[in-house]
Amino acid sequence: MFKVNENFAKLPGSYLFANIAKRVSAFQAEHPEKEIIRLGIGDVTQPIAPAIIEAMHKAVDEMGHAETFHGYAPEQGYDFLRNIIAKEDFQEKGCDISADEIFISDGAKCDCGNIQELFSLDSVIAVCDPVYPVYVDSNVMAGRSGLYNGETGRFDKIVYMPCTADNGFLPEFPKEHVDLIYLCFPNNPTGEAIKKADLQAWVDYANKNGAVIIFDAAYEAYITEEGIPHSIYECEGAKTCAIELRSFSKKAGFTGMRLGFAVIPKDLKCGDVSLNAMWMRRQGSKYNGTPYIIQRAGEAVYSPEGKVQVAEQIARYMKNAKTIYTGLKDTGFTVYGGVNSPYIWLKTPNDMKSWDFFDYLLNNAGIVGTPGAGFGPSGEGYFRITAFGTYENSLKALDRIKNL
Amino acid sequence: MFKVNENFAKLPGSYLFANIAKRVSAFQAEHPEKEIIRLGIGDVTQPIAPAIIEAMHKAVDEMGHAETFHGYAPEQGYDFLRNIIAKEDFQEKGCDISADEIFISDGAKCDCGNIQELFSLDSVIAVCDPVYPVYVDSNVMAGRSGLYNGETGRFDKIVYMPCTADNGFLPEFPKEHVDLIYLCFPNNPTGEAIKKADLQAWVDYANKNGAVIIFDAAYEAYITEEGIPHSIYECEGAKTCAIELRSFSKKAGFTGMRLGFAVIPKDLKCGDVSLNAMWMRRQGSKYNGTPYIIQRAGEAVYSPEGKVQVAEQIARYMKNAKTIYTGLKDTGFTVYGGVNSPYIWLKTPNDMKSWDFFDYLLNNAGIVGTPGAGFGPSGEGYFRITAFGTYENSLKALDRIKNL
Repeated sequence: MFKVNENFAKLPGSYLFANIAKRVSAFQAEHPEKEIIRLGIGDVTQPIAPAIIEAMHKAVDEMGHAETFHGYAPEQGYDFLRNIIAKEDFQEKGCDISADEIFISDGAKCDCGNIQELFSLDSVIAVCDPVYPVYVDSNVMAGRSGLYNGETGRFDKIVYMPCTADNGFLPEFPKEHVDLIYLCFPNNPTGEAIKKADLQAWVDYANKNGAVIIFDAAYEAYITEEGIPHSIYECEGAKTCAIELRSFSKKAGFTGMRLGFAVIPKDLKCGDVSLNAMWMRRQGSKYNGTPYIIQRAGEAVYSPEGKVQVAEQIARYMKNAKTIYTGLKDTGFTVYGGVNSPYIWLKTPNDMKSWDFFDYLLNNAGIVGTPGAGFGPSGEGYFRITAFGTYENSLKALDRIKNL
Repeated sequence: MFKVNENFAKLPGSYLFANIAKRVSAFQAEHPEKEIIRLGIGDVTQPIAPAIIEAMHKAVDEMGHAETFHGYAPEQGYDFLRNIIAKEDFQEKGCDISADEIFISDGAKCDCGNIQELFSLDSVIAVCDPVYPVYVDSNVMAGRSGLYNGETGRFDKIVYMPCTADNGFLPEFPKEHVDLIYLCFPNNPTGEAIKKADLQAWVDYANKNGAVIIFDAAYEAYITEEGIPHSIYECEGAKTCAIELRSFSKKAGFTGMRLGFAVIPKDLKCGDVSLNAMWMRRQGSKYNGTPYIIQRAGEAVYSPEGKVQVAEQIARYMKNAKTIYTGLKDTGFTVYGGVNSPYIWLKTPNDMKSWDFFDYLLNNAGIVGTPGAGFGPSGEGYFRITAFGTYENSLKALDRIKNL
């Protein structure tokens, strides 16, 4: 009899956001009259910007005529998009990254999940705690996690780096040897950013200890303060130890469009083996390119009109962030994040458990947030609220919370 | 020092089609004046049908307005697409498949490559020889292949089932126990189809021996003869032993659009473990849905106008197939396929090696095909030509071959 991948059985229950969706549906079914405000999953609400819509209409028309039709795309992405990303996101910002170090994908979630395939199965993984579940789950499925310990809420073989108010939400260097370090800054879920000097220390640590950093920069477009790195390649030596993952989902509202990219420098090597070449081979064999129309949409994000429109969208979300952050603070909550990130991370009142606060907020205020414990044991007692709703809903949610 | 996945080093050279592209570019650079006819990679040339273009314009407009904007899609696909697929591709054709057994993806290549993640690492894999390289390469990367033997052109631990003119291009049952059997019919690369009774025998074999069949039906839309199954679920008992993969790439010219789906019946289990539930978990954690615009495009393939237009496109390709098949036969070639498939599989003249014939055809006729040996050792001495070019180019290629 065939055998299944038994690592799947180690995963505790369902994917976090699927779990939340289920609880919300159950509540809505019981209370069809209640209007629910969804500030849970990090999905955007503003429509795609006009310049991008126009670029897509043009690309759709191209697909409708034999002379301009586009079949299979290059697995690593079209040059028009790789070139503009290399230039505007990196070279013009002082990062020495070339177009052939950029691999276009259908989003950072897939890249996050797939990137572990490049590493040996006995690699030791380090993650922040709390953490975006995909880093952990993809390594569980691959067999690197060991068993789940229900008491600690942790996997045996994964190294967890707690990020709490006590350490300013900055992970400390692992005491044991680790091979692969997942870092996400500005952080999901805490909303806190990392200063350049602190990230430089991580790059130095990785180079010294022969580790690779998977740097998830999905939220870099939300950075508002000086001195916060947008890319890990702003740090000296990052090209020999870091892969960076970027997303158009939050930057340009592409959650339903699916576009992202991985940066794998050619200097990143294990002996003679180039990780850039390995990823090229991986994508060549298991991926078939991102849709032409979507890549043209991505290009339009960099057009003069696109830039202005996308910046306006982000400013609108950040106005929500400020409103929610300040409002909650004024109500007496202890709040974090929200300055360089669309996420507000709050301490639950009276040491309430995260899931209890989730139910409390859903039942009494009709507000959906994300329980911190869903991101890992050190998220217990915290709660994530996103700024991706409308301004009206952000205000309304705040009012409901104040009146509790 | 971190360690890479050493299985990658077992892969012999680059991905087949990347290899061909490189040779063709080199030739074109040396002979810029020569007009090359590309009948190599299975990429389509006809533009997307008008009904589909219209649906995409509408979906693009929806993305541009807050009221109709679509963010994250369900990882398993939108119901509007899953429902119509279940109804039209399966239920109306007598296959008892429901919408929640259908998982929308960004194409069959990704599904082919990812599906192996559901199975244990010591699973024994059986593939046809010649074979679409993704089945093998994805298992090599995962560590199931053993070492590559340069003399036999085969991996130690993979079971190869030769498909040659001697056995009518139908694989024979493996003598040893196998866990996972990849079958593709109508076949890529041979272009030959399987009769229903023969496929039923495979289903019976799999059920009896506790194996799973991964049935790649990417070319089912090209079937012209009666008695050839479009789906493996036409066979009795297939729901307890088979996963089917489908593609919109060849059916509706979506190679540059990226849309496909996997069918994983709920009856397909290993003990208590449902593969449908496992795939749901896998996609929930490592995939983020197919773009809304592309799923609406897929839906339009099933509209009354879409159906007519897509059928006309296929008929045009099949006219090419017939022209090439008959023309080559009349010229004295031994040819296969081309009747229920867009691929013509020819025996190279004078027992020429496949890659020698590739170079010969490129250098002397400016025609790009695919060397049979690139699909596996039993493909040696064969050569694949696709019917996906234009009619004019098909005729021109034929003329050039006749004049050699």
